[in-house]
Amino acid sequence: MRRPRAVRHPEMPSLATIDEGGVTSALGFTASGVHAGFYEGNDRLDCALVSADVPCPCAALFTRNAFSAAPVDVSRDHLRRVSFGFVRAVLINSGNANALTGENGLEVARRSASLASGELGCREGEVLVASTGIMGSRPPVEPFERGVPLACRRAARDGGHDAARAILTSGAHPKEAAVSYRSTDAAYRGCTFTVGGMAKGPEMLLVLTTDAPLSPALAYRALEKSASASFNKVIVDAGSSTNDSCFLLASGYGAKPGKPIREGTQAFREFSEALKEVSGRLARCIASDEQCVSCLITVHVVGAFDEADADRVARSVAHSLVVRSTVAGRHANWSHIVSSIGYADALFMRERVSVDVMGVPVLRRGALCPFDEQRLLREAGDREIVIRVDLGAGGAQTTYWTGDLPPG
Amino acid sequence: MRRPRAVRHPEMPSLATIDEGGVTSALGFTASGVHAGFYEGNDRLDCALVSADVPCPCAALFTRNAFSAAPVDVSRDHLRRVSFGFVRAVLINSGNANALTGENGLEVARRSASLASGELGCREGEVLVASTGIMGSRPPVEPFERGVPLACRRAARDGGHDAARAILTSGAHPKEAAVSYRSTDAAYRGCTFTVGGMAKGPEMLLVLTTDAPLSPALAYRALEKSASASFNKVIVDAGSSTNDSCFLLASGYGAKPGKPIREGTQAFREFSEALKEVSGRLARCIASDEQCVSCLITVHVVGAFDEADADRVARSVAHSLVVRSTVAGRHANWSHIVSSIGYADALFMRERVSVDVMGVPVLRRGALCPFDEQRLLREAGDREIVIRVDLGAGGAQTTYWTGDLPPG
Repeated sequence: MRRPRAVRHPEMPSLATIDEGGVTSALGFTASGVHAGFYEGNDRLDCALVSADVPCPCAALFTRNAFSAAPVDVSRDHLRRVSFGFVRAVLINSGNANALTGENGLEVARRSASLASGELGCREGEVLVASTGIMGSRPPVEPFERGVPLACRRAARDGGHDAARAILTSGAHPKEAAVSYRSTDAAYRGCTFTVGGMAKGPEMLLVLTTDAPLSPALAYRALEKSASASFNKVIVDAGSSTNDSCFLLASGYGAKPGKPIREGTQAFREFSEALKEVSGRLARCIASDEQCVSCLITVHVVGAFDEADADRVARSVAHSLVVRSTVAGRHANWSHIVSSIGYADALFMRERVSVDVMGVPVLRRGALCPFDEQRLLREAGDREIVIRVDLGAGGAQTTYWTGDLPPG
Repeated sequence: MRRPRAVRHPEMPSLATIDEGGVTSALGFTASGVHAGFYEGNDRLDCALVSADVPCPCAALFTRNAFSAAPVDVSRDHLRRVSFGFVRAVLINSGNANALTGENGLEVARRSASLASGELGCREGEVLVASTGIMGSRPPVEPFERGVPLACRRAARDGGHDAARAILTSGAHPKEAAVSYRSTDAAYRGCTFTVGGMAKGPEMLLVLTTDAPLSPALAYRALEKSASASFNKVIVDAGSSTNDSCFLLASGYGAKPGKPIREGTQAFREFSEALKEVSGRLARCIASDEQCVSCLITVHVVGAFDEADADRVARSVAHSLVVRSTVAGRHANWSHIVSSIGYADALFMRERVSVDVMGVPVLRRGALCPFDEQRLLREAGDREIVIRVDLGAGGAQTTYWTGDLPPG
């Protein structure tokens, strides 16, 4: 079989990190975070709004959990059974996930969207909703009645940080990121585009914004691809929660009106790169900043027969209870890593597999290498442990992230 | 499609539990447990032998882990690439798993088998070996040289308890069980058969013995079937360890020589029942008696579309980190159980799913039921929590077991 000739693309523009950037770094968006009262007895921010100045193209990914929460069902419905459309705002509350709440929960979710659409002067279907927090108890309506008008009034260009704080549940730190780049596509000469976002874990909730001009369908294409290399590769629990939601809003304010980016162009490739970068940063934040988690574990798998095998092995290692508690306890019995590769049901010859932790050889030719465990652990430090698995069976690879302890 | 007519079988004999029964309850076997020195500095039993009086039909199941340990590879080889044959003894050491030890480890495993065969006066290929303990360090030969002769000399009819203690690693209690039954098959009138065994977890190691007369191939058939309903449904870590091994030896001493049981007979059905009973008891012991585990979690799934779906849902619930830590912490946020059903990728309508914990309804019509959590937890007590999931999608069912915390 002949190899396809490599296509020569123009060089990618360099991405500039925006200091303290977030969900309002891109032009055309405001945000706010207010105390609505889902958490009682203190002033903790628990209601966030991200608002677009005008109805704007939006794409969303939702949990595949069969028990999807009420806000997920309502947002899906608002996007009219495809996962993209035009919206004005995303409303998020923390403190109550509105999951497993039946018909009652749907009513509350719809009511919250309607409150926001009333304030913003748009249709109810142009507001998407998301919730996070405890499952199984119907959320009270009062906090929405109090909080939503406040959140709409307070929405501002500098409100991104408050919004990021308002969606937190167990995590300690708000998770935000933003980058900008100068387009190298001739069609967008002189245009600077920004991609930013905020996130929370372990139940994943993300809002991404950009001022690049995208159609809803193309925004969906880009979001799906970047998620598969970022959020979908963060292992916290065994599967997707009832509330996982990820939104991308594209205002188009960075370019002249009426010039949406097309697929297959340099402009789309550079936007995809920027989205991937922001998504990757947020994914790492989610993996490392959960209750009980003290250390990020990065699992690189290379040399896999195909992508499915790479995924299987990386998931198996990242999922392994024993690997994670081993790292947490600093017992560092690395043989558990090897065992979890062994039961991943991937194609390889065991003599060809090599495993390295922080660059130190751990497995060669089917046997554990003798190494200075204490030194390795000192080098690993507290922040990140990198596990690299080479299956020696092909050219496919992937990267997964997890934390070193189960979430409380 | 016409339903196959139900075949009427003679009634199953009742199974009598043998008090303090174990791996030597069946006729034709001796066993021992000695201190060989794999654990240093104390007299802890760490070498076990189960010996058949004469070469006897044996079946074995081994780990599917690609990094199978040296003793697994050697035992597989001794059974000549099918998983059954004739053997004289099973030799097990604890304290060193001889896993990920390469060519060196294979030498040690072969040497240990050869030491035993020398003592027992049989061929090396008639000795199967198994190891459990830490992975990745080559086991020393000296403990085998000291322990194996001792174990062979000490092997006795009442040595089952010592053997069961010698294979323990992290578990607190030796795991043994035995039952006997009077055959109702006309071909074995007056015969009483016994099935017994010993086990350890979380890396599964089991030796089962019987004095029922079975061919090696039929022993394999029975073992495979009982394992799929017992050991294979115990969830400890995400996959099978490097050392998982399960042996069944059938001396035939309970019947006249030359009358092996045939497939499809009443005698085979009743033996299978007895084997399943002993396997089930040992499986529950493995799930509940691991370091850190304070409580057995039994997951019944009924009403599944097919067996694969039942398995998927039960595994998903039993695997869930959050379910397990929830039960451990007695937070009892049962919604996590529902969430893990939701991402199991099984076929059902969520409104038809019901979940009960200790008989108390937890989920109905897609919503969590209000219930007295404290009462439920008091009723659950400390010993066992039973979770019942009815998917309302068909007639398939299964049962899985796990403990309420990850193993240390």
